[in-house]
Amino acid sequence: MERCGKQENTMKNSGLNADKTEAREFQTPSSGIFFKADRVLCEKTTAFQRVEIIDNAAFGRVLLLDGLVQTTEMDEFNYHEMLVHPACSSHPAPRNVLVIGGGDGGALGEVLKHAVEKAVLVEIDSGVIEACREFFPWLEPALKDSRSELVIGDGNAFVRDTDLRFDAVLVDSSDPVGPSTVLHDEGFYAGLKRILNPGGVIAAQAGSPVLHLDALTAKSLFLKRLFKYSRYYLGPVPTYPVGTWCYHFLSDVFDPLDGRDLRIPAGLKYYNAEIHTAAFALPNYLRCLA
Amino acid sequence: MERCGKQENTMKNSGLNADKTEAREFQTPSSGIFFKADRVLCEKTTAFQRVEIIDNAAFGRVLLLDGLVQTTEMDEFNYHEMLVHPACSSHPAPRNVLVIGGGDGGALGEVLKHAVEKAVLVEIDSGVIEACREFFPWLEPALKDSRSELVIGDGNAFVRDTDLRFDAVLVDSSDPVGPSTVLHDEGFYAGLKRILNPGGVIAAQAGSPVLHLDALTAKSLFLKRLFKYSRYYLGPVPTYPVGTWCYHFLSDVFDPLDGRDLRIPAGLKYYNAEIHTAAFALPNYLRCLA
Repeated sequence: MERCGKQENTMKNSGLNADKTEAREFQTPSSGIFFKADRVLCEKTTAFQRVEIIDNAAFGRVLLLDGLVQTTEMDEFNYHEMLVHPACSSHPAPRNVLVIGGGDGGALGEVLKHAVEKAVLVEIDSGVIEACREFFPWLEPALKDSRSELVIGDGNAFVRDTDLRFDAVLVDSSDPVGPSTVLHDEGFYAGLKRILNPGGVIAAQAGSPVLHLDALTAKSLFLKRLFKYSRYYLGPVPTYPVGTWCYHFLSDVFDPLDGRDLRIPAGLKYYNAEIHTAAFALPNYLRCLA
Repeated sequence: MERCGKQENTMKNSGLNADKTEAREFQTPSSGIFFKADRVLCEKTTAFQRVEIIDNAAFGRVLLLDGLVQTTEMDEFNYHEMLVHPACSSHPAPRNVLVIGGGDGGALGEVLKHAVEKAVLVEIDSGVIEACREFFPWLEPALKDSRSELVIGDGNAFVRDTDLRFDAVLVDSSDPVGPSTVLHDEGFYAGLKRILNPGGVIAAQAGSPVLHLDALTAKSLFLKRLFKYSRYYLGPVPTYPVGTWCYHFLSDVFDPLDGRDLRIPAGLKYYNAEIHTAAFALPNYLRCLA
């Protein structure tokens, strides 16, 4: 998954320490999460960002981009299942699926659990793909799947220019703050609507329900104009700020709470039909997003 | 709230650092959470534990006992609302309520939002009460409420010896590992059942659904024998390990999912009727607890 764009004063304090024994992320300017590094597996700077992968006794391999935790072996299923399956399981037959961002391949792996014909992954940074191919066990098999197609490129440009059409689009973008806010703009979502097949469905990571609430509230206004059904839902991600993450479900055809039969792949660790409904229940402090 | 009893090797690394600028908790032996300390408000050792209260720019006042985060001003409502309201809102009229543990007063404050006649708080450590009275704004008004009664004493002994009977009992105990495991024993819960009025209901913090899964699984076996309705439910707690916390709902009369009208106090930040139902949805990896 992709997260970036925190304020600079926290970013520069996040990541591996000087003696490479510990990585930390300032989730706010004054608090955060830390991981002891048994080994540093990867440490490089690409054209886009600083890439660090460490081995941690509790979470396994941990990927940080510009010092922000993107995914860990132990808890990635929480995020990737909840990004992919509420949308893909609501669609009666998602044949063509697009994943924007998500160079670690976790979302692609979940998409391939559905009976798709084609799954396109658009990731801007080939350096992330190369690092994750080497150190995260699920990426290489997902990319080698005959249904997968990898595009190295800008997600916004891809959506603007492509002639392809999709039954489901999963937006595994950066957070709704900082330099990559274009993937949270009205224009980007209008573009996504254009490349949907009739009956298509979109799910997008939306950020932290606490840290990014202003951005979430603003976004919900134009998304309600663009889509007949626009709903936020929630899921836990232990290594993301405040431990709970927010996602969008967008469709002109499917109400995610209409009681339809969900086509849920076998073998999932987190998502099931009860969780699907439960995820759309918003606490009082998020009622502004309903 | 009360949490303690982690393995010693992590506990001794948790808490304020040497120069008092930062507090950290090792949530696992190799990872955890940190808070910059703008000020250290309290640092003392009682007969039971080390008590630290710091001021943090993001979370406000943070209480640590033996280096483990108990509560913060910013996020306490998540935990205390979910400990208290699913039980107290399910009961048609909880008049007499018992809180075991929870010397910070957060649970007591939530109990007093219901039309109770008497709320008894049993906390073992007067040093926690004294520190929280001074530094957490909600404790003093809760204790001064004419319906409140504070008992400084051992929760297990209180339950064994009391002649009082309660409509609702909230167990704000330590985690189900380490020296305080007595509050997770079958004998303790049999005692709780004895002091319930007919139609009474119990909610208990049960620990982390990831870190304490073995203990949760074992406990569910005897709780199913003791109570007609024994269910786990979940809620987010940003500053607790993995960000999601597990609770028990226990009753011989009320199925928490029977669709009854919930008597929910006004002005809550988290809990509502949709959240009530959603909290009982368990992810696949916790289906063993169903």
